Amino acid sequence: MKILIIGASGTIGREITYELERNHEIIRAGRNGADVQVDNTSAESIRNMYEKVGKVDAVVNASGGANFASVSELTPELNEKGIESKLKGQINLVLLGMDYVNDGGSFTLTTGVMMDDPIPMGASAAMANGGVKAFIKSASIEMPRGIRINSVSPNIVEESWERIGHLFAGFNPVRADKVARAFVKSVEGRQTGQNYEVY
Amino acid sequence: MKILIIGASGTIGREITYELERNHEIIRAGRNGADVQVDNTSAESIRNMYEKVGKVDAVVNASGGANFASVSELTPELNEKGIESKLKGQINLVLLGMDYVNDGGSFTLTTGVMMDDPIPMGASAAMANGGVKAFIKSASIEMPRGIRINSVSPNIVEESWERIGHLFAGFNPVRADKVARAFVKSVEGRQTGQNYEVY
Ligand SMILES: NC(=O)c1ccc[n+]([C@@H]2O[C@H](COP(=O)([O-])OP(=O)(O)OC[C@H]3O[C@@H](n4cnc5c(N)ncnc54)[C@H](OP(=O)(O)O)[C@@H]3O)[C@@H](O)[C@H]2O)c1
Ligand SMILES: NC(=O)c1ccc[n+]([C@@H]2O[C@H](COP(=O)([O-])OP(=O)(O)OC[C@H]3O[C@@H](n4cnc5c(N)ncnc54)[C@H](OP(=O)(O)O)[C@@H]3O)[C@@H](O)[C@H]2O)c1
Repeated sequence: MKILIIGASGTIGREITYELERNHEIIRAGRNGADVQVDNTSAESIRNMYEKVGKVDAVVNASGGANFASVSELTPELNEKGIESKLKGQINLVLLGMDYVNDGGSFTLTTGVMMDDPIPMGASAAMANGGVKAFIKSASIEMPRGIRINSVSPNIVEESWERIGHLFAGFNPVRADKVARAFVKSVEGRQTGQNYEVY
Repeated sequence: MKILIIGASGTIGREITYELERNHEIIRAGRNGADVQVDNTSAESIRNMYEKVGKVDAVVNASGGANFASVSELTPELNEKGIESKLKGQINLVLLGMDYVNDGGSFTLTTGVMMDDPIPMGASAAMANGGVKAFIKSASIEMPRGIRINSVSPNIVEESWERIGHLFAGFNPVRADKVARAFVKSVEGRQTGQNYEVY
């Protein structure tokens, strides 16, 4: 398959790329130093990416961020990053990419454990994750031409523990290669409308 | 209690108002003909509403919309209504209203059955509902001063069946007064972080 991976250079994206490049042709996308440049917060940039890349069999996204802030400190302005990047960034990859995915192809997005097992300062990211999960469940029932759509919900990964582990008191981090295999399941399997929890 | 109800004139908001006005002082908010005017898609308008209303014990929201469109026809532009109104509109009522809610008060927002039992053309609304539900679950663990936050997830209501029932094949509509009582439970009860399903 020809697979477009947005966020291929990231902590999780690297492992997804490693798992998928054994058997597939990979196109890496991101803001810097990738095969094709894209900023997921801009619909225009997403459109340009798809025009350059052309038809693919699978789109995998492992990019998208949100601000960490306690709900007392969260403002509509701080919440915008989660809205623009983690939520709309991912959904626009689907809406604008539909015509570029071959029959029977797939989209796989990223959510995260914080929507199911809340942590302090996590409300904005949880919001985006919950929006993506519900969108996927709903969109999956009417995707055209046998195109499937799933998400992977990673626990905090071991590789990020040093950087953000202090926010995840009592969590048992998982290895990013374990998370990556859920993306392989989504891309190479046949299920749709799923949110694969790797907790 | 002093209770601010946004969308008090709507199909569901009317029933919520009817249930709560027996025992509480109600302030009705909406775009037209209410005690106080507000457009939930504008943070500025929400700020003005709270400044006019001052301190309250509970904020109840029964306003918010999204476009109905099949996922093949949904564009980033069409998806904006759900983002601005049903998702950010509701979340901004919380973020901007926090300081206006008395100690031990509450927020109650509205989600909907479409996120759990998907219907065609419902992906944008499902996205917004899922975002609100996850936000509430996460925000509830760190709300200040004992303030609680819940949502009510209505099934399609009988009163809306003639208008939109054709989109809900095989659903068993519920009466809006049954939905309204879940809002009463949220306002007068003690639970937090809940999404009360009235299916
Ligand atoms: N790490 C965890 O423990 C964990 C746990 C649960 C969920 N998640 C979620 O998994 C996803 C990936 O996390 P990660 O830790 O692997 O992130 P990361 O290490 O920061 O990598 C992010 C990747 O996305 C790209 N990127 C960043 N902003 C972008 C933008 N605006 N447009 C396009 N590409 C962009 C980056 O490349 P460029 O900088 O070159 O653009 C990079 O390849 C995120 O949604 C995160 O919330 C992570
Ligand atoms: N009806 C159902 O079967 C059903 C089922 C599940 C979920 N829901 C959800 O429940 C909520 C209420 O539904 P409903 O059927 O009662 O709606 P509705 O009858 O259309 O009433 C909407 C109410 O919100 C106000 N409103 C509309 N836009 C607004 C804005 N931009 N800013 C502030 N107020 C606004 C309206 O008053 P003005 O026009 O004066 O502003 C009205 O009071 C919606 O989120 C809906 O998605 C409804």
